[in-house]
Amino acid sequence: MKSFLTLKSVEEVLALIGTFSPLDTETVPLDEAAGRWLAQDWHAPEDLPGFDRSTVDGWAVHARDVFGAQEGSPALLECAADLSMGKAPDVPLEEGHAARILTGGMLPEGADCVVMVEHSRPVNDELVELVRSQAPGDHVIFSDDDAAKGALLIPSGRCLRPQEIGLLAALGQVEVPVRRRPRVVIVSTGDELVPCREKPAPGQVRDVNSHSLAAFCRAAGAEVRLAGLVRDDTALLHETVARACEEADVVLVSGGSSAGMRDHTVDIFTSMPESELLVHGVAISPGKPFILARSGEKCLMGLPGHVGAALITARAFLRPLLLRLQGGEERFRPGVRARLTRSLASAQGRRDYVRVRLSRTEDGWAAEPILLPSGLMSGLVHADAVVVCPENSEGLYAGEEVWAEVLR
Amino acid sequence: MKSFLTLKSVEEVLALIGTFSPLDTETVPLDEAAGRWLAQDWHAPEDLPGFDRSTVDGWAVHARDVFGAQEGSPALLECAADLSMGKAPDVPLEEGHAARILTGGMLPEGADCVVMVEHSRPVNDELVELVRSQAPGDHVIFSDDDAAKGALLIPSGRCLRPQEIGLLAALGQVEVPVRRRPRVVIVSTGDELVPCREKPAPGQVRDVNSHSLAAFCRAAGAEVRLAGLVRDDTALLHETVARACEEADVVLVSGGSSAGMRDHTVDIFTSMPESELLVHGVAISPGKPFILARSGEKCLMGLPGHVGAALITARAFLRPLLLRLQGGEERFRPGVRARLTRSLASAQGRRDYVRVRLSRTEDGWAAEPILLPSGLMSGLVHADAVVVCPENSEGLYAGEEVWAEVLR
Repeated sequence: MKSFLTLKSVEEVLALIGTFSPLDTETVPLDEAAGRWLAQDWHAPEDLPGFDRSTVDGWAVHARDVFGAQEGSPALLECAADLSMGKAPDVPLEEGHAARILTGGMLPEGADCVVMVEHSRPVNDELVELVRSQAPGDHVIFSDDDAAKGALLIPSGRCLRPQEIGLLAALGQVEVPVRRRPRVVIVSTGDELVPCREKPAPGQVRDVNSHSLAAFCRAAGAEVRLAGLVRDDTALLHETVARACEEADVVLVSGGSSAGMRDHTVDIFTSMPESELLVHGVAISPGKPFILARSGEKCLMGLPGHVGAALITARAFLRPLLLRLQGGEERFRPGVRARLTRSLASAQGRRDYVRVRLSRTEDGWAAEPILLPSGLMSGLVHADAVVVCPENSEGLYAGEEVWAEVLR
Repeated sequence: MKSFLTLKSVEEVLALIGTFSPLDTETVPLDEAAGRWLAQDWHAPEDLPGFDRSTVDGWAVHARDVFGAQEGSPALLECAADLSMGKAPDVPLEEGHAARILTGGMLPEGADCVVMVEHSRPVNDELVELVRSQAPGDHVIFSDDDAAKGALLIPSGRCLRPQEIGLLAALGQVEVPVRRRPRVVIVSTGDELVPCREKPAPGQVRDVNSHSLAAFCRAAGAEVRLAGLVRDDTALLHETVARACEEADVVLVSGGSSAGMRDHTVDIFTSMPESELLVHGVAISPGKPFILARSGEKCLMGLPGHVGAALITARAFLRPLLLRLQGGEERFRPGVRARLTRSLASAQGRRDYVRVRLSRTEDGWAAEPILLPSGLMSGLVHADAVVVCPENSEGLYAGEEVWAEVLR
């Protein structure tokens, strides 16, 4: 059966990717949790910092004892015992007394603010002059200022950055619930392919996509197994995909760029148990012959054989899928603003991903389109970013300011 | 000895970081090379693809045999044997003949272009009509189009992304020379600190910086060892730093936020062999009490104890250092454009890093400044990005368009 492709839009494909469920939760040690995605809302198990702390080096006092104090009319207070770091003060601070405190130190009972050391003049060992009036709370972090017990601190689905790791550490969360890593099996097809360790004979090329897609998947948090090279043989590909489905959450078939093999890939995907063909062709360039199917909760994806097209498609759809399986999403698509060095034509109704090389100019960045066929790898290696030419545009003009998403 | 800090500018600190040399080169397997930094210029060891390939499914021909062909006056050619993928054609293509070829297939000797299958009409098994005139080279990637033997493909110091991994695979480079990972030892100081597994007594807090800085360093490619917690004891800190120097490329001391301990850290750094104090204080906020020193080729860095300040400083200086040691650099600082929701005052002569929360608006992103003390962690956890308020600015206005560097 051969039919014209009904091309889906990028948004339609992303919505279909959203129909896959996040994977199971597992618990990992705090020091291995960075870059993973939190699997449940996390609330403060206790107050943080848990006691009133000074934010400066200075003198803990009762605010009313320094009320109105200034350079010309200092408040004269009696020196209480110095406060030690890491210890609760033994006794409350009496009125009319000031206790020496360090940044991060615990305020004694009764003290409600801190006068900075810069605003103090020791008279002798027993007396100190303070020359600044303070309000209660000045230079103090109160017991639950950073987090109040029970407050939602990190919502489910957040990627754990160094700062989230810090907050988890601060509250003693030494084990962290995250979604397990997606297991991806990569199948490369094509009679012309040889493993990259081998010297290709004339007419053969080394298998590129297994390695570049594996790197791509790992950077998106996945565990990868390479199923190796499969000849353009339907039975063999069927068997390989079926076996991959048993162990993997995502089966990637790359290649089959000839029209015949593409159809075979679709047929094989739809012959899996509980299968449904979700996408066969998407309105982007490069990457149009993209295939997405499901077999129960397993995701089957067919990527173009051309490495340029494969990586652009992976960025557009595979990464969102892998994040989705981890319960996360890409909230931002960071880039730089740049001016196009030449005009670009684009077909209406199709989203073009134009690879660009970025270079510094006097007033920002210049984006030079790399106009090489997507079958050449060098084009993608020279590319620093991609510029998206949207569906409703006929092109972009030289000198126009564009958004260049940096390729990592 | 106590002296006023001579604050350095961000550019001065970065220039000093540039005086450290990249680390040694090591060789890693291709599939572990992603995210590492190439240690030498890499030239093509052979032509790529290494033979003339078709970029379409169609018919390989001599261009002169289809010269002037069009819908109304097709060129009638004799069918040569079908070409197989992955094999060199047995015989040259005779004049007046056309050979069926698939995308990626090798052109037979004599053929110099390909007519797309869409522009062919088979007459019978022996004859085919071609209805499109082609120039030599049409729909062909020539033997050295992707890379010519000897050409510089990836310069030294480039971070290896999935596309670079692909190009290395394509040319059979199964082992890759990269800079070895920097070894970082993290020392946390402060009498108030307890390990994050323990329940702090009143006045104590858990050690946050060890874990968040470790995550930060690992994300920048480093190997990390935690030296654990060191009391505010000069002799003990001296011994810990000296031991760390023996095994590490970078020794991070975090904490010592009290004025006294900061001075001790500087004294300890400068007592190491072949030491030189490079920076003691930098004109940024937060993060002013930053310390940078060297002991021979070892780098000694003192970061503020406040986690917010520590991570901002790490982003400004530690990451550039870790990349420098790997022979790399951050070429772009990707972000998003956003409008400030409120005005921000800033001191002249100082670079302020303002944490912001990003939210979608009708016409882009809004950046809401998070105005919490840098000692609170929740502020950094709520932050999606930082907005830099430059040295020559007195502030930024509500509604102003700013550049928000996304925090990862």
